[in-house]
Amino acid sequence: MFEDKNTSKTPLDNLGEFALIEALTKSVKHENKSSVLGIGDDAAVIDHNSKQTLISTDLLVEGVHFDLSYMPLKHLGYKAVMVNLSDVYAMNAIPTQITVSIAVSNRFTLEALEEFYAGIDLACKNYKVDLVGGDTTSSTTGLTVSITAIGVASKDKIVPRSGAKENDLLVVSGDLGAAYTGLQVLEREKAVFQVNPNTQPDLSPYTYSIERQLKPEARKDVIELLDELKIVPSSMIDISDGLSSEILHLSKSSNIGFHLFEEKLPMDPEVNLICEEFKFNSTTAVLNGGEDYELLFTISQKDFDKIKNHPLLTVIGHAVEQNAGCQLVNGLGHQIELTAQGWQNFSEKED
Amino acid sequence: MFEDKNTSKTPLDNLGEFALIEALTKSVKHENKSSVLGIGDDAAVIDHNSKQTLISTDLLVEGVHFDLSYMPLKHLGYKAVMVNLSDVYAMNAIPTQITVSIAVSNRFTLEALEEFYAGIDLACKNYKVDLVGGDTTSSTTGLTVSITAIGVASKDKIVPRSGAKENDLLVVSGDLGAAYTGLQVLEREKAVFQVNPNTQPDLSPYTYSIERQLKPEARKDVIELLDELKIVPSSMIDISDGLSSEILHLSKSSNIGFHLFEEKLPMDPEVNLICEEFKFNSTTAVLNGGEDYELLFTISQKDFDKIKNHPLLTVIGHAVEQNAGCQLVNGLGHQIELTAQGWQNFSEKED
Repeated sequence: MFEDKNTSKTPLDNLGEFALIEALTKSVKHENKSSVLGIGDDAAVIDHNSKQTLISTDLLVEGVHFDLSYMPLKHLGYKAVMVNLSDVYAMNAIPTQITVSIAVSNRFTLEALEEFYAGIDLACKNYKVDLVGGDTTSSTTGLTVSITAIGVASKDKIVPRSGAKENDLLVVSGDLGAAYTGLQVLEREKAVFQVNPNTQPDLSPYTYSIERQLKPEARKDVIELLDELKIVPSSMIDISDGLSSEILHLSKSSNIGFHLFEEKLPMDPEVNLICEEFKFNSTTAVLNGGEDYELLFTISQKDFDKIKNHPLLTVIGHAVEQNAGCQLVNGLGHQIELTAQGWQNFSEKED
Repeated sequence: MFEDKNTSKTPLDNLGEFALIEALTKSVKHENKSSVLGIGDDAAVIDHNSKQTLISTDLLVEGVHFDLSYMPLKHLGYKAVMVNLSDVYAMNAIPTQITVSIAVSNRFTLEALEEFYAGIDLACKNYKVDLVGGDTTSSTTGLTVSITAIGVASKDKIVPRSGAKENDLLVVSGDLGAAYTGLQVLEREKAVFQVNPNTQPDLSPYTYSIERQLKPEARKDVIELLDELKIVPSSMIDISDGLSSEILHLSKSSNIGFHLFEEKLPMDPEVNLICEEFKFNSTTAVLNGGEDYELLFTISQKDFDKIKNHPLLTVIGHAVEQNAGCQLVNGLGHQIELTAQGWQNFSEKED
């Protein structure tokens, strides 16, 4: 589906592990003073002085989390980093280093892996994060990527999932659902391509959604904005599995319920159009789609004036007492209990 | 080959990801004050005050790094942690936290994964390390394990690979080659078992080697000993790929050559016996076998008296000028250039 202009092909079995690591990491440069020692020793050394260190890790498996038939390797590298940085931002912290481990089968060439690392490299540059270590090994099948992100924050700025209080406002950044609709479009085009490889799909009506699926951005800007506005959220999480699932996490960790207002859910108009075309319910796409990598957080009501009408942020509900549970309230005032139908790996993805 | 006494079997597709994480991590307790926030948020929080943070990561793939037909899952969990702690000790640092990510196919049950986590738990207890996070996901095939270890050290104690000087002594802890001979025995018994599943093998002559392969220990004791003796090595690495390969790493990082004396190589008598039985050259097993997880380091000659005749440590050679290269010197004084024939994943393991 994507034309491959890469002409040089070096099989991995012509290289040893160390030659491969050298080839893939030769362009690595450090941007953070705290990166004392990086790739090439038994461990990386990080000097965070008196700040607290944060650590987050994600494992991405070909055929489960990504499909290389429509996900270019450079985008995959970029997205794999975003997934982890998003977790660090969701603690109201600043990511500073990452490690990248890959298990890769012989079907990949050095040039393919260089594309993947070019995506990682770009993500590191855009977010001023240093690649300081990792592991490279063979796999019997496919590609597995494990990324660990390290970050820093001062003690009084860290925001866990557990601090939401009754009457706090529930706020989300950006808009939701587009990563999911983008995935639906890509899956459909893949099916069409398999039937007729000469089809040239017109993807222009789906640009925003496809970009949200293939090249998401972590919300560094939102963390910077909260800092400028002198807001420390009472709880925060990033939206990887879907809005419903994340609200339930905040609810469980904070021992609190939530009312979520359907008419407040922020959605790009393209999401509505694709949902109509595919005959989906757009609210379901927003609640359960996942992979938006937006930030979901609670703030005290006294901070409302600071964020009111800000284009990046939308108040979508508020915290209520625990026994009220987590309810979606629709335009007619009806309440529907939220359930986690997001990313349930074992039951849904392997059928 | 190993009898399975586990009678309760819960398929993973009866559980969601979060229920699985809860089941696997319910016994996790923290031992380190620096573990401020652990499993269950977007990132772990670590407070290392003014010390430097170290980070090391390894990815282990079924069929490449381990074979579950003779590696019990509890041992695999233990060993996976050891591999990482060993890297942190090899920096002369103390590991304090780990994260564990697994990708696992539907063929595993909850009880099997609980065995795996029991091994991780035991390793954490024995080494006073806290499990603070991770990721759990499905795979299309087999088991992949990614572990990241975090450690601390004061700035002046950290030992990279790059500090060896001419005339420094080359020292190794424990003995070498047994993890490799253990693997050979296990591979042979597996082949016998496949032909005749009713065979009860007598593994008693191979106890030491099999234990070294299935349940290695990281050399915490050696790091504590060096501290007691007030020795800070000039360079250090752990032996995962094989002695030859590690000496070449120290050589490259420190811009120095090495003379290694064949007759000094420390070996358990069992290794010699197995090598005779299998018609291997025992020096080759020691040089290229790998997975010993002993520490290899260089010290200044002035520190020699402190370690002389210590049962844990053996001087096996010394650093020479770079142009002399890395040479194995045998009993007749002949020199043979060392080559890395260790763990070359892509060229050797996937044939």
